[in-house]
Amino acid sequence: MKTHISDANFPKSADGRVYHLGIKPGELANRIITVGDPARARTIGRYLDRQATAKAVENVQDQAESGVSGNHNGAHANDAPLSVFELYSERGFLTITGTYKGTPVSIVSIGMGSANMDFFVREAREVLDQAGAGDMVVIRFGSCGSLVDDLPVGSLTVPKTSLCVTRNYDFDFMQEEGLDAARPDFMDAYRISKPVRADSVLHDLLVAILREHLPSSTPVVDEHLNASADSFYSSQGRITSFPDHNTGLIDHLAACNVGSLEMETFHLLHLAANWPRPHAPSTQVAEKNGQETDQGAEPVPPPPTSIAVDPLILPSDNPLPTQDTEETILYPSPQQKTASSASQQHKRIRAAAVQMIFAERGSRAFITPQEVEVLQETTSKALLETLIRWEDVN
Amino acid sequence: MKTHISDANFPKSADGRVYHLGIKPGELANRIITVGDPARARTIGRYLDRQATAKAVENVQDQAESGVSGNHNGAHANDAPLSVFELYSERGFLTITGTYKGTPVSIVSIGMGSANMDFFVREAREVLDQAGAGDMVVIRFGSCGSLVDDLPVGSLTVPKTSLCVTRNYDFDFMQEEGLDAARPDFMDAYRISKPVRADSVLHDLLVAILREHLPSSTPVVDEHLNASADSFYSSQGRITSFPDHNTGLIDHLAACNVGSLEMETFHLLHLAANWPRPHAPSTQVAEKNGQETDQGAEPVPPPPTSIAVDPLILPSDNPLPTQDTEETILYPSPQQKTASSASQQHKRIRAAAVQMIFAERGSRAFITPQEVEVLQETTSKALLETLIRWEDVN
Repeated sequence: MKTHISDANFPKSADGRVYHLGIKPGELANRIITVGDPARARTIGRYLDRQATAKAVENVQDQAESGVSGNHNGAHANDAPLSVFELYSERGFLTITGTYKGTPVSIVSIGMGSANMDFFVREAREVLDQAGAGDMVVIRFGSCGSLVDDLPVGSLTVPKTSLCVTRNYDFDFMQEEGLDAARPDFMDAYRISKPVRADSVLHDLLVAILREHLPSSTPVVDEHLNASADSFYSSQGRITSFPDHNTGLIDHLAACNVGSLEMETFHLLHLAANWPRPHAPSTQVAEKNGQETDQGAEPVPPPPTSIAVDPLILPSDNPLPTQDTEETILYPSPQQKTASSASQQHKRIRAAAVQMIFAERGSRAFITPQEVEVLQETTSKALLETLIRWEDVN
Repeated sequence: MKTHISDANFPKSADGRVYHLGIKPGELANRIITVGDPARARTIGRYLDRQATAKAVENVQDQAESGVSGNHNGAHANDAPLSVFELYSERGFLTITGTYKGTPVSIVSIGMGSANMDFFVREAREVLDQAGAGDMVVIRFGSCGSLVDDLPVGSLTVPKTSLCVTRNYDFDFMQEEGLDAARPDFMDAYRISKPVRADSVLHDLLVAILREHLPSSTPVVDEHLNASADSFYSSQGRITSFPDHNTGLIDHLAACNVGSLEMETFHLLHLAANWPRPHAPSTQVAEKNGQETDQGAEPVPPPPTSIAVDPLILPSDNPLPTQDTEETILYPSPQQKTASSASQQHKRIRAAAVQMIFAERGSRAFITPQEVEVLQETTSKALLETLIRWEDVN
């Protein structure tokens, strides 16, 4: 932690950077692909528009090939005057922002698990709110295991719905396994949530563009539910040396039409479905948190933080394209630049997910590095196309 | 993913590296400090014994100052023939293994959230099992917020007990807040688990050594419970633009004697308390997973994975000290090297945690970078002392 932080409720640096992602307003587009792995983020980032000299582009490629840049001081990783902004936060989040065929987009690498997805969604939405951006459009691009035959290794699933599987910490895991044949242990040892839906418009656009871009030998399936688990092992039904009481769990999920198992999608869809705040908080809540209240403003969301935020000013060492220099906000979409205050009241989070099948849980097959490389590159282009064609259908 | 993976149940590389931590038997000591941040891991790593030339030590210091090394191919980060092994996995885990005053220790940086703690505990235990190591002794060294006056910014808490606070995904977060004054929303929107205990011997040793090492101006408190939450925001009672129905949550936790809030400690203590498996799994479970069964072996844990593991052989580019070259296992403790098969049956995970107070939730004060630096360095030395003095009391 190299910067001074000013408030324990929604901590930010003195220049308005959110605590974990490390970015500030103007550094994030509202059309976002989120992945787990910085290397995957850089693979997608290679397709962003370049407006620099050939020499500078070479430098970026070298950097991408060498992996994480190790930039821990919050400064820009690319010093060359490129059209791509890149920030690797000291908490391990990588944000790459640029344009694709002229439209601003971001790619954010978040690591693994629902906690990291929670950091990303909340802090990204906060940064966009401060920038006055409208809808946040997010595609999760991840990997998963499959439980069903029509999702072989190397195929893609685009779930319409996701549920979550979490460990019940109050269950006695040290008790003998299988005491009650009529009620399998996993029913008490794990909680299976109600499903939550992906944004149907974004989902359908994504499926259509993926099928356009992927070779016919790569199945793109959207028949199955997804399940996000809080462990790669126990709550995904893997049998290890720990007494996880999870025998039968994956068979049960497959019988419920769950096709894919991973760790992040549910939390993205859940937060998207539960924003914005439908009602302003009570005066009591706002006052307790030092917020100014606006009792007549329902359904406008309250101020997202309780602290002063610095004015949005272009950094003097701005590595971004000059086309927006008359704007203080770098990466709103064209429609947001002209958004009325009325439309600002209806801003939403619109989210969907596409997952590469890395493992078949039945046959125990696993994808090869070569297969990942090909699938990842083809899919990346389709995802960027989806983000920039989003305006056409809305 | 640069290596070929062979099994979807407990994936490992062809040379026996666990999937997320990237390490294999021999690369992890059984005395471990685990932190969130790679930079903090490197700060602690600087105190490990060096047996190299001054020039080589300088190289390591340069690397530590430049942050994450970006080593994504599973090879050793330090090519110089130092006495410290370092591996930064492509999934973002950093393992540093060496000796402190001659005793093998490891430092593992895991990122944030319970999912990452789950990866760490399960894969570290797996690696140690394969190496034939005994007890795994783990100290979590993290940061947290405090809810009580006797834990000011810059103090340390060493909780005897931790509970967890998780979001109830089935709660209707879009409903109006505060509908029932008699039952605050957080009671239905969040689940608060039963508490789980730290290892009492390790806890007491830790407190004693911290009090020896820290200046009298730094309180070392072990009066309060810890709570680990599944979000930095909602389940830690922060009020943001999301409708989290968490008003009153932190007051409730403080009233239950919870002094500190963070995101990982509970899960470490929970897994430690629930290992090893008290009974061998049924024949049916083992057969389903392709494991050989040993029906007479209770209470010996079953084979932790279902796949063949490569024999443990020193790598040809071994950067480790030569003192162990007659051994094929590099980092078991002396007591483990001579462990009988009987004592192997009683191996455990013994865990405790110390947390630096970064934020006061009441006053909203936040620690400065300078305060972190001083506190972190002093505490690090005390933690290493605790690990190497562990044998003296057991």
